[in-house]
Amino acid sequence: MLERKSIVSIEDVSTEEMFEIFRVTDEMQGSIDKKKRLTSMSGRIMSTLFYEPSTRTRMSFEAAMHRLGGSVISMAEPKASSAAKGETLADSIRMFSSYSDIIVIRHPLDGAARLAAKFSSVPVINGGDGSGQHPTQTLLDLYTIYHSFSSIDGLKIAILGDLKYGRTVHSLVMALSRFDVEISLVSPPILRIPDYIKSRVQDNVKLREETDLNEVLSNCDVLYVTRIQKERFSDMNEYNSVIGTYSIDVSDVDKMKKNAMILHPLPRVDEIKPTVDYDPRSAYFKQAANGVPVRMALISLILGD
Amino acid sequence: MLERKSIVSIEDVSTEEMFEIFRVTDEMQGSIDKKKRLTSMSGRIMSTLFYEPSTRTRMSFEAAMHRLGGSVISMAEPKASSAAKGETLADSIRMFSSYSDIIVIRHPLDGAARLAAKFSSVPVINGGDGSGQHPTQTLLDLYTIYHSFSSIDGLKIAILGDLKYGRTVHSLVMALSRFDVEISLVSPPILRIPDYIKSRVQDNVKLREETDLNEVLSNCDVLYVTRIQKERFSDMNEYNSVIGTYSIDVSDVDKMKKNAMILHPLPRVDEIKPTVDYDPRSAYFKQAANGVPVRMALISLILGD
Amino acid sequence: MLERKSIVSIEDVSTEEMFEIFRVTDEMQGSIDKKKRLTSMSGRIMSTLFYEPSTRTRMSFEAAMHRLGGSVISMAEPKASSAAKGETLADSIRMFSSYSDIIVIRHPLDGAARLAAKFSSVPVINGGDGSGQHPTQTLLDLYTIYHSFSSIDGLKIAILGDLKYGRTVHSLVMALSRFDVEISLVSPPILRIPDYIKSRVQDNVKLREETDLNEVLSNCDVLYVTRIQKERFSDMNEYNSVIGTYSIDVSDVDKMKKNAMILHPLPRVDEIKPTVDYDPRSAYFKQAANGVPVRMALISLILGD
Repeated sequence: MLERKSIVSIEDVSTEEMFEIFRVTDEMQGSIDKKKRLTSMSGRIMSTLFYEPSTRTRMSFEAAMHRLGGSVISMAEPKASSAAKGETLADSIRMFSSYSDIIVIRHPLDGAARLAAKFSSVPVINGGDGSGQHPTQTLLDLYTIYHSFSSIDGLKIAILGDLKYGRTVHSLVMALSRFDVEISLVSPPILRIPDYIKSRVQDNVKLREETDLNEVLSNCDVLYVTRIQKERFSDMNEYNSVIGTYSIDVSDVDKMKKNAMILHPLPRVDEIKPTVDYDPRSAYFKQAANGVPVRMALISLILGD
Repeated sequence: MLERKSIVSIEDVSTEEMFEIFRVTDEMQGSIDKKKRLTSMSGRIMSTLFYEPSTRTRMSFEAAMHRLGGSVISMAEPKASSAAKGETLADSIRMFSSYSDIIVIRHPLDGAARLAAKFSSVPVINGGDGSGQHPTQTLLDLYTIYHSFSSIDGLKIAILGDLKYGRTVHSLVMALSRFDVEISLVSPPILRIPDYIKSRVQDNVKLREETDLNEVLSNCDVLYVTRIQKERFSDMNEYNSVIGTYSIDVSDVDKMKKNAMILHPLPRVDEIKPTVDYDPRSAYFKQAANGVPVRMALISLILGD
Repeated sequence: MLERKSIVSIEDVSTEEMFEIFRVTDEMQGSIDKKKRLTSMSGRIMSTLFYEPSTRTRMSFEAAMHRLGGSVISMAEPKASSAAKGETLADSIRMFSSYSDIIVIRHPLDGAARLAAKFSSVPVINGGDGSGQHPTQTLLDLYTIYHSFSSIDGLKIAILGDLKYGRTVHSLVMALSRFDVEISLVSPPILRIPDYIKSRVQDNVKLREETDLNEVLSNCDVLYVTRIQKERFSDMNEYNSVIGTYSIDVSDVDKMKKNAMILHPLPRVDEIKPTVDYDPRSAYFKQAANGVPVRMALISLILGD
């Protein structure tokens, strides 16, 4: 049902399609585990157009395409592009879409991916545009939760950190609101989730806001941690107090449920101490690894087998 | 007949070889349209060596190689290269030619591609060197014309813009002089085609020079538009007057023949208004798309099937 | 026997494994010569992680993986990486190892490759870290010698140039000390080999130090030349005297044995005059070319066929 579709926002993916993606992701993970050689994308070309660097996202998409037997052409040096000569994004996309079968775009400006999808003759996947959307991150977050608990409904999910600027969090909260979940939003007051997100989801989910992590730690099934960026703070005393409180260490994890899971979109700096990595509840590396099979599933469903 | 040949200049391609390339290009386009999986270049490696950035040309060559089932290794960050350590181009090429089966080189200096061809143990294709040659651009220009009119002989071709510095135009005019065509060269006086080009072709083709686009608009079969670069002008008043006259809009297109075609090597900035894109005579995006099958044909003919 | 092993240092490769690599290298070279299409790495992905640029090494590894039918994802723009956001190398490697089947890392810091091997879930090959190790360079150096003389034992090997800072030389000397060879180290006094290298090898090989190239020229079987970097000298007069003496020209080569060979890890600047390239004893381009089959052999042996 995703055939030939562009995925600009997580809203472009119906809940039914989401479960279809999860089902195919399980298959893809099985193939990876068995070192099975897939060839369904053999002869097909993906363009990865990164107008803003993101090695992690680019390489995850490229690995996914290669695992399916496909090829990749890549633009990862925006200053070298025709954009530098004054070409519009619409023109660039028309050209790149004639070179390839699917486009992944990353762009510093909100709405760039939607515009690309409009002018492209082939499907476009948004790899993150401005403070807008990053739908494949949300898909892999949800897949990681779903795969662990076999359901998303009924879970208590705490989200911690910079809830104001983090587009990962916004997409995740929006997507979670389709399910029967309880969401606790834990952040310093100045980094609370924007009202427009809250108003769009609060009819569907139980939402509460906290500043104290201890209010949620012992109770949540999922603790989703994000990075707090120093440059968001004008008062360094405030920053230092916050950053200390929100740095997860082993003593925090000890308060959590035995089968809870800790997620993080990565890169992580100091939000989660390295000692936590050895606790079985830490799932952020597995979450990152899930990026490949989730993207394999998405590419397969969009381009057909 | 192109087997094992390096293509540095359009002069390296005989007219007979050109038509062979066009014939194979038609086949390649057919394969693309049918999403046929080609494997003739499977196991072969192309090096794309870009000592000067050109995302468009690089990605078009790489897409062509991948469409044929081949692989690509790429140097798109000249500052990272051994050239930065003082290595000569001859040494670099000797090395890269031992890594791959064919080399595509782009270089800021005239003659670099000829030198590369001399020292390489594998065929070299010039992807543009200095103000010198860019033979695959010329091939795709001619193919686009030929494919549309089923012949090049007998056509009236107007070329507009910067005729002094544009290497694309120089190669095109040289190549057109092999055919029975009428060429109108339309440019501001300071951007006229150089005398050495004119003297080489004027015995073979009817050539006239104009400054007023309206002299040729209603009569030409092909209008080939190029970008005028601001930095070529010392007098900004002159630049502004020129840039206005030479910006093609719908009212200009209305004066053209019904089956005429508008070409542009892209990127386009303001030389052709976006509204023109919706007129069926605009063929510049198709022209850019032709870069892939033309390059597929060239690679196939050089490396053999 | 190399299966699943990381190769951080040449010390990680036993002499038995070395000969196994040379045997498979011969096979790989045979496949390249016959333009045989190999598919043993089909479906497998190599990550090339270059935290420091080295076009030559990167492209040689990528060519090797492609020649085996495998795919490559590449990070060649370190400033674009998550490291720039403060991510530790351990975290980055954990992620990249979940995207790929083998990692090649190049890093400006000593020990980075060992750390990467520790945190990676897949085998890691060191493509050069700091002033540390560059084991595949050593393997291709030794293979080139072995392939030419059918043995390493019994050879007289002269090594010329910067013996103090050149990691290539350090690895080579260490590896040669496993064999029954005579090593002459020729350098200006200030660029002599460090004592810690000398003390590690002098029990196993005959080692002598010279400043005059003529002492060794007529006698050696292998002359291994390295680049002397201007910036190592505080006294430019000293630099100029050294650089003149150590620049190999045809008259030097004329003094050498008929079947001797001249090697250089490249890039070469002025240490070997271009006229020497036409002498059959010059083997540095063949040496560079050997990088591909040697790396093919290593990848094949590590990942299994």
